[in-house]
Amino acid sequence: MAYFDNAATTYPKPDPVYSFMDSFYRNHGGSVGRGDYALATTAKGLVDETRNLIQELMHCPAKQVIFTPTATIALNMIIQGAIVSGARSVYISPFEHNAVTRVLHHFEQLGQITVTELAVSESLEYDMVRIRYQFDVIRPNLVIVSHASNVIGLVAPVEDIFGLSKEYGAVTLVDMAQTAGLVDSNVGLETVDYAVFAGHKTLLGPTGISGFLMSPTVNLPPILYGGTGFDSANQNMPDSLPEKYEMGTLNIAGVAGLNASLRWIKGQTIERLYKEETIKRQRLLELLSDYDFLTVVGNVDGRKYVGIVSCLIDGLSSDSAGSIFAERGISVRAGLQCAPKAHKFLGTYPAGTVRLSVSALTGDKDFDELKDALDDIEAEM
Amino acid sequence: MAYFDNAATTYPKPDPVYSFMDSFYRNHGGSVGRGDYALATTAKGLVDETRNLIQELMHCPAKQVIFTPTATIALNMIIQGAIVSGARSVYISPFEHNAVTRVLHHFEQLGQITVTELAVSESLEYDMVRIRYQFDVIRPNLVIVSHASNVIGLVAPVEDIFGLSKEYGAVTLVDMAQTAGLVDSNVGLETVDYAVFAGHKTLLGPTGISGFLMSPTVNLPPILYGGTGFDSANQNMPDSLPEKYEMGTLNIAGVAGLNASLRWIKGQTIERLYKEETIKRQRLLELLSDYDFLTVVGNVDGRKYVGIVSCLIDGLSSDSAGSIFAERGISVRAGLQCAPKAHKFLGTYPAGTVRLSVSALTGDKDFDELKDALDDIEAEM
Repeated sequence: MAYFDNAATTYPKPDPVYSFMDSFYRNHGGSVGRGDYALATTAKGLVDETRNLIQELMHCPAKQVIFTPTATIALNMIIQGAIVSGARSVYISPFEHNAVTRVLHHFEQLGQITVTELAVSESLEYDMVRIRYQFDVIRPNLVIVSHASNVIGLVAPVEDIFGLSKEYGAVTLVDMAQTAGLVDSNVGLETVDYAVFAGHKTLLGPTGISGFLMSPTVNLPPILYGGTGFDSANQNMPDSLPEKYEMGTLNIAGVAGLNASLRWIKGQTIERLYKEETIKRQRLLELLSDYDFLTVVGNVDGRKYVGIVSCLIDGLSSDSAGSIFAERGISVRAGLQCAPKAHKFLGTYPAGTVRLSVSALTGDKDFDELKDALDDIEAEM
Repeated sequence: MAYFDNAATTYPKPDPVYSFMDSFYRNHGGSVGRGDYALATTAKGLVDETRNLIQELMHCPAKQVIFTPTATIALNMIIQGAIVSGARSVYISPFEHNAVTRVLHHFEQLGQITVTELAVSESLEYDMVRIRYQFDVIRPNLVIVSHASNVIGLVAPVEDIFGLSKEYGAVTLVDMAQTAGLVDSNVGLETVDYAVFAGHKTLLGPTGISGFLMSPTVNLPPILYGGTGFDSANQNMPDSLPEKYEMGTLNIAGVAGLNASLRWIKGQTIERLYKEETIKRQRLLELLSDYDFLTVVGNVDGRKYVGIVSCLIDGLSSDSAGSIFAERGISVRAGLQCAPKAHKFLGTYPAGTVRLSVSALTGDKDFDELKDALDDIEAEM
């Protein structure tokens, strides 16, 4: 078995993630913020430490860490909350995931918002001159950018886009599902209002724990309601953070795993992990270039990428191609990868692509098995 | 350390929950429904099996199992969706948790709904004659009942209430956070439209995985949007179940733990676990009755209960009392337990109570340590 679906979820995790998750949950599996006894305070200590590790890794000591079960729920909370707060004109990158575009589509259909794609050139450059022109025509209220495309791995120049967005008074949101803990980013910048992270992707933690960072200056009405183990008599959600957005029981088993992965990343350093993943992406590109039946999509020299590569296979739909890899024990992700708009932009809609994605932990064995499978596919063509 | 906060989260879990969660996630930690390679199909197999186990345990083969990260999110999805669908008159039991009442409060404040409490007598009997009268005065659109109160453990006669509710055409929702897998229940009845379960409470699974069962006949617009790894070109949520309500990456580590706990419960049988928990609740009540400074609240002979007991302590606020237990290593939950309306009904608002809750796995050691602590507290009074 070879694993090239790290953009869906990273696998394997660093060993301490599995072992700490297990040992912490066995020994300290209490309910956070739901009592003041030892189990609960130990759990609270772990959660506080995990928040601090995220702030440290993202260089944003002054931003509030909110845990959510998934990045999708975090995006719903921020986008729906911003629309409730009055955002009407929304700009997105051409590479947004359905976790963003399906939320927006709902409110677009209701006639509550307009959605415009930021100008990106055919050579995959965000065109700041044209974006300024777009902003002059329709003033942005909310600007949403996927830090890295989950289809082609292209990293967006978030600092430039958000700097410009702030000139127009927009609220800014960066979706770091494919970059948190991997692409060193100064989330502490005042131009970043919200940054969403997915615990189980580049942060190398388990499923079931994600979240977002928010600037202390933004106002976000909650869209989900429930118990917070705090201020219980109040039938409104409490105003205090993070409780205002953390209703229900926190996934303490997940937080334990994320805590271990954050400590592991800190020890390795983000710089080293990004370098390692870039080497593996390069190795993947070189391997793929040996096969004439494969065409890589959206890879332009000189641009910045994470370890995601999309390709087309001569004479095969991406779905059939996906099955051919699966039969040979190679995990890839075929089709639209939940990002139809990205494929429209790239000209690969509606068939999509075959996506292969690496992490710093992708091994020689994965590459060897992929090479064998590609040789095999080539021989049968 | 003695653990009497099982109503917040059960602890410990059966050993297979920890061990299977660890081994499955280490060896098969792929992303469900996001590819057709071996890791993903193994994960999908586990998820399908887990859905079947829930249907079997709840006697509802024809109801759809939807996984959500928490019961609170499940309740938000159902209640907000029902209100979007036109529910205006909502009835609740007097024992609802903030996961229900804070959601309703939001829409009540907007003037979109009215909320009425079902008639329950001082002797804690649901008064079906008066409830029929209530329904005649204001016809119910949505009836929500906590199957067991998280404050006093009282089990509600859901079959009777929902039978009557259906005569008036109401949609019905039972919150089984404190009863799923513990109180044998026929969720397959046509009168039950929605049943919410919390994986980490009476189902003895880990945090981060919960969900609901829904009747195939109800119409529920989604309130959260995102990728489903399926029908990606469609910018609306797909109509197919469970995908319509399962956006984002499923917590496969959590599902593995829940799968193990469901198999464990099936082996033990619900009947035996309820009997065991009832014996432990009785033992707790007998122990507490030895101390004059304690007064148990809401315990009426002849009514059905789960292993939750609330009490007042002479001369002490419940918060101070909670600290006194915590200092002695006893985990209890003091205050309003996220259920202020239940305390208003019981006459223990706003100070709340000290809640002690057992599970079938509460041990002799827990009881011995509780006795020592109570002796100690008595000596100091």
